[in-house]
Amino acid sequence: MTLSVDLKNIASFVSEEELNSMMKEVTAANETLRGGTGEGNDFIGWLDLPSNIDPDELSRVKKAAKKIISDSQVLIVVGIGGSYLGARAVIEFIKSPNYNLKKKNTPDIFFVGNNLSGEYINEIIVLLGDRDFSVNVISKSGTTTEPAIAFRIFKGLLENKYGEKEAAKRIFTTTDKKKGALKKLADAKGYESFVIPDNVGGRYSVLTPVGLLPIACAGIDIDRLILGANNAMEELKPVSLNNPVCAYVAARNALYRKNKYIEILACYEPSFRFMAEWWKQLYGESEGKDGKGIFPASVELTADLHSMGQYIQDGERILFETIVNILNPNSVLRVPNDPANIDGLNFLSEAELDYINKQASRGTVLAHVDGGVPNIIINIDKADEYNLGYLIYFFELACGLSGYTLGVNPFNQPGVEAYKKNMFALLGKPGYENEKAKLEERLKQ
Amino acid sequence: MTLSVDLKNIASFVSEEELNSMMKEVTAANETLRGGTGEGNDFIGWLDLPSNIDPDELSRVKKAAKKIISDSQVLIVVGIGGSYLGARAVIEFIKSPNYNLKKKNTPDIFFVGNNLSGEYINEIIVLLGDRDFSVNVISKSGTTTEPAIAFRIFKGLLENKYGEKEAAKRIFTTTDKKKGALKKLADAKGYESFVIPDNVGGRYSVLTPVGLLPIACAGIDIDRLILGANNAMEELKPVSLNNPVCAYVAARNALYRKNKYIEILACYEPSFRFMAEWWKQLYGESEGKDGKGIFPASVELTADLHSMGQYIQDGERILFETIVNILNPNSVLRVPNDPANIDGLNFLSEAELDYINKQASRGTVLAHVDGGVPNIIINIDKADEYNLGYLIYFFELACGLSGYTLGVNPFNQPGVEAYKKNMFALLGKPGYENEKAKLEERLKQ
Repeated sequence: MTLSVDLKNIASFVSEEELNSMMKEVTAANETLRGGTGEGNDFIGWLDLPSNIDPDELSRVKKAAKKIISDSQVLIVVGIGGSYLGARAVIEFIKSPNYNLKKKNTPDIFFVGNNLSGEYINEIIVLLGDRDFSVNVISKSGTTTEPAIAFRIFKGLLENKYGEKEAAKRIFTTTDKKKGALKKLADAKGYESFVIPDNVGGRYSVLTPVGLLPIACAGIDIDRLILGANNAMEELKPVSLNNPVCAYVAARNALYRKNKYIEILACYEPSFRFMAEWWKQLYGESEGKDGKGIFPASVELTADLHSMGQYIQDGERILFETIVNILNPNSVLRVPNDPANIDGLNFLSEAELDYINKQASRGTVLAHVDGGVPNIIINIDKADEYNLGYLIYFFELACGLSGYTLGVNPFNQPGVEAYKKNMFALLGKPGYENEKAKLEERLKQ
Repeated sequence: MTLSVDLKNIASFVSEEELNSMMKEVTAANETLRGGTGEGNDFIGWLDLPSNIDPDELSRVKKAAKKIISDSQVLIVVGIGGSYLGARAVIEFIKSPNYNLKKKNTPDIFFVGNNLSGEYINEIIVLLGDRDFSVNVISKSGTTTEPAIAFRIFKGLLENKYGEKEAAKRIFTTTDKKKGALKKLADAKGYESFVIPDNVGGRYSVLTPVGLLPIACAGIDIDRLILGANNAMEELKPVSLNNPVCAYVAARNALYRKNKYIEILACYEPSFRFMAEWWKQLYGESEGKDGKGIFPASVELTADLHSMGQYIQDGERILFETIVNILNPNSVLRVPNDPANIDGLNFLSEAELDYINKQASRGTVLAHVDGGVPNIIINIDKADEYNLGYLIYFFELACGLSGYTLGVNPFNQPGVEAYKKNMFALLGKPGYENEKAKLEERLKQ
């Protein structure tokens, strides 16, 4: 199998019996999920998404990416939450966090609409300069505050630069199939429009046009990404601890029951940083409800062994780690020999960095286990599109199963509304007048 | 005062009485710290560092920065943990996370030696290309594996490009005053060398040449940074809840006693991301020991309100938030009016983004408090050198006090050795033969 899960390093914390017992709950969760009988069952379209992608839609995505690559030096992607994290994570992991700095035949890609910082947007406008650009705006409704503001700004820039008619050919919307403000605008102006399926929530949407269009614009092979997910879908069905998905779900829930409240996702490749951010949304938003859920955190190793490493080794014993271990490196680099050997490192002369990285990883797992931190290891072959597609589906499926095992609806996010309601009231949005007065009163105290 | 701490939003979780009671412990911690009577008292040089910086050393730092700016298009900074986080955090916060992408009169800056990824280093070599460059290598000992390997590589590239003699003028070491492999090499080769004071640990070193040289190379005003820290040092001495440092320390320790195990540092400016990473090292490494300590985490807002926001609002009630609130924005941007108003945002037409950002922040605090999450708010005037220097000293002082209040030595990091020992053994470092056999046996099981 492309991916494996190693539970050896939780053995001193969770017994085989406990794992088997937890598997009964995972089995029930699997029935709930696949039977479509659980809460949130109108949002399980991601489950067979990899085999359900409409070939016409996919070829429109590729055609749009081809056009953008050919006529744009910059792509501005407008979106927040699931409408940017997946694309950014995949681009950074496959191409590099330094993607924009690299010489390449594909456009620079900037993500906007994911904050309310004027400073941030002003800087992107400067970085854009007078280069040719296109905009991909991603929003189910078209009315979410952050992306809607950013879209007003960059749509304005496009129309000023190219005129309304040509600008319309440079705006690509990814939105609802039929309804909503953005769909309405796209229809009125003739923007090319891609569909966010009704039964796929934001955090599960990276393999829909939400993620696929920006990812394709970075020159990433989306067919391979989908193939990996598709094979994962086929291979990860058995309900058994031999299925890495079930192993991961059973392990993390067993650990949570033992008051391991925090899961730290770690990788020894710095390019994984935003994959961890994507994972945090997936798990935090799916499980963090009803006063429950594992708190998702992340570290970048070995860097953070010289930072959070101390806490992991010796702090509150309320955490466990999940390591994404990439078995084969994409490139080779060897430690140069130095006859003077002033740093004492000649025992590593000519050693491959990846070999040293792996020993650091192996040694760290043992050290952390000795310190009281259970470690789950997820192995993938290499950092490429196929393996990443596989890993994405693995994490999605595990998340759905894990949420049902925990006893929550893994597919809603009711808590996200609370801040929005207050923000609208404080901003004086029509209809929120009473609420505004109450909040201002509280803020005065 | 430049900085204030607002505890209004913890009032429903911690009573005034409890805060006052905690202040007694903070008072004792303050005596221990300032009296130099606590564990780790040989590492409290940061306490009066801002007024103790040797003017000659400082002018050498500026002169070196001037030379690097004049003859280098790229600066390679080699360091791990405290030897890179502070500089990277300050450069991203003051200049931008996109610093390297910007047109500027100062060199691109790449941080290496903070991981063991060959892929990562190979990419930096490509990005460096044939541009003129210099290297600043930062290591107390000169033998830490990650930076020592990276230094071998980039020193080799420099010597190949310029010859050994000219390369020596492009290598700047920041290391021990007298001893260690790197100091020995610097003396032998005639590298310009800066001093890491003996009584300042890595995570407290950003205002020593460790941080100051790379920061100055980015064109940041280090005098203003130091002035801010110096004024913080003067103003943050009173032992009272009116002192924001004491307020922060008392509040977070009182919350921890109530099983709020996780502190999430949040900011509404994306440029703060690496300041949060710096803060995580400072607090995680200082407090995470003896099975104790608050787990430091971070989010970027409003982005992560559409990610971790759900968990914060509704998940396990074991966390609190600390918001760094920047009162005045550095630049202005207004929401464009759109006569069609398809997104329904015209109630915000011509509103400043920072105003909207602030209402999001105010609304979120209330929503999270209602959800059971205490919020501490730290206000600073703006994102500039002076305020940042002030904030850095604030966090350092609070960390030292907090560690003693918790009952740990805030200035050591014994847990960092555990992984190193295992790694050396697995790598076959001479002297670790017995350990290696034992570890390999465990790994086989």
